[in-house]
Amino acid sequence: MSATAPEPDARAGDALRQAHRERALTEEVVAGFAETKDPRVREVMSSLVRHLHAFIRDVRLTNAEWDAAIAFLTRSGHITDQHRQEFILLSDVLGASMMTVAVNSPARSEATESTVFGPFFVADAPLVDSGEDISRGMSGRPCHVRGSVRSTGGAPLPGARVEVWAADDDGFYDVQREGGTLAGRAHLFTDGQGGFDFWTVQPAAYPIPHDGPVGDLLSATGRSPMRPAHIHFMVSSPGHQTLITHIFVEGDEWLTRDAVFGVKQSLIVPFVAHAPGAGPRGRVLDEPWSSTTFDITLAPAHE
Amino acid sequence: MSATAPEPDARAGDALRQAHRERALTEEVVAGFAETKDPRVREVMSSLVRHLHAFIRDVRLTNAEWDAAIAFLTRSGHITDQHRQEFILLSDVLGASMMTVAVNSPARSEATESTVFGPFFVADAPLVDSGEDISRGMSGRPCHVRGSVRSTGGAPLPGARVEVWAADDDGFYDVQREGGTLAGRAHLFTDGQGGFDFWTVQPAAYPIPHDGPVGDLLSATGRSPMRPAHIHFMVSSPGHQTLITHIFVEGDEWLTRDAVFGVKQSLIVPFVAHAPGAGPRGRVLDEPWSSTTFDITLAPAHE
Repeated sequence: MSATAPEPDARAGDALRQAHRERALTEEVVAGFAETKDPRVREVMSSLVRHLHAFIRDVRLTNAEWDAAIAFLTRSGHITDQHRQEFILLSDVLGASMMTVAVNSPARSEATESTVFGPFFVADAPLVDSGEDISRGMSGRPCHVRGSVRSTGGAPLPGARVEVWAADDDGFYDVQREGGTLAGRAHLFTDGQGGFDFWTVQPAAYPIPHDGPVGDLLSATGRSPMRPAHIHFMVSSPGHQTLITHIFVEGDEWLTRDAVFGVKQSLIVPFVAHAPGAGPRGRVLDEPWSSTTFDITLAPAHE
Repeated sequence: MSATAPEPDARAGDALRQAHRERALTEEVVAGFAETKDPRVREVMSSLVRHLHAFIRDVRLTNAEWDAAIAFLTRSGHITDQHRQEFILLSDVLGASMMTVAVNSPARSEATESTVFGPFFVADAPLVDSGEDISRGMSGRPCHVRGSVRSTGGAPLPGARVEVWAADDDGFYDVQREGGTLAGRAHLFTDGQGGFDFWTVQPAAYPIPHDGPVGDLLSATGRSPMRPAHIHFMVSSPGHQTLITHIFVEGDEWLTRDAVFGVKQSLIVPFVAHAPGAGPRGRVLDEPWSSTTFDITLAPAHE
């Protein structure tokens, strides 16, 4: 302490004044939302400000760190286009996407669990019949997927809409290929007993796009960009909550460190390997193939 | 409650399971930073995740709100270029910029208070001599600004660097004018007694850029984009903390509702109106002019 340093009493006063000043700023900003017409907007913005301010106070964010945050968001904005969504990746790697999934699909002991939607869904994937091959020439080991859709009461749900999409065995989705056509994705409807099945290729683990700011964040925090192999499902049926989920391939080495925290134990299923020969739906295979089963239970829309 | 609704015991179990699941997700994401080399990066990211997750949990963020947040950030990124910085505006209107200022310039009873830096600083503003006119043809009532720079002990600080920048009486900075040259900004050094003075024009209140997503946010929350009239200062002297602040024009109607929460009582100063005639530095004015004084006290760099 130098000769000109303030006395302990002055320091204590400054510390109190500082704490008061920080609290008062948060209250001033929250009060600024008093004229908000929509009460939900007011609630969300007030909570956002309280948590954002608490973060800055708790870590005593430096000016250089604030500069870095602005630069990070700016780079994320500039790398984002119709094929690349860095803000979704950011939400994913911070677990914010999974937390949003969690609060919107409350635990129901009987219902199938949800996981992240991800950035690779395409709204107009083709309609296929049960048993068709949706891989359309994607590379990978042929894989037959079958399952059922039921209500939490146990009743089969005929005519449920099942959307599926997945990467190939290089870990790429069709939309990531230059000028690629739709492949490895489709929608189909369950049959009279709530059953569905289709052929595709067994997906591989893959890294999320990591040549941008989110990739730099993963590097700086010693994290891997890898996601364990999975197939996406979105399943809907009138009167039921729409389910957005994946199945994960049992045994995948990345199951315990998914870059986006999407893995749930109940969603890990065995993919059974088969020697070349006769497979389901009359298909005869001259190469090894695999098969898996995913039985889905939907929660009622309202209780 | 319908006939198929679960029993109360099942519901209680689901609620407990849900709360546990949400807590566990946050811990899983924080644990993901275990391999971070830089302990400060780990601290900041862990705190960010905890506060971000708490926000999502507290407001039970809907999927539609998450979509809106991603779209908001995407639009902000796409409107940002070398002349427009929507992420700084966002930080400003949420009070995050002022909170960062607050934690980096702790209350010191004697030192001049800080406020937001803003997006309109230019690093290479011209060097001028004491008493020069920095307005370079900007529109507005001529205004003479004088002041002094001292240390918290009271000692004058000769040779302190004083950067100033301000809007004209239409509320525009030079850099917001098409193909404009630098005007209304300069840097100068204090004289042997720590004094400085310059001529400029009296600034006007103005709206922050509000034709983008941040403007939409202000509209949705019933807030004004206006900032009260002010002149920016950045003052530095060896051995002292650099001060980033404004002076505000006493009596401005927007002082109590600054869009970026930058106003502090101690920074509001009178701008005195004068009839045409002789002014400081031998200038003779054929129009009304004003004058103001800003005495600045810098805190020591380290204690």
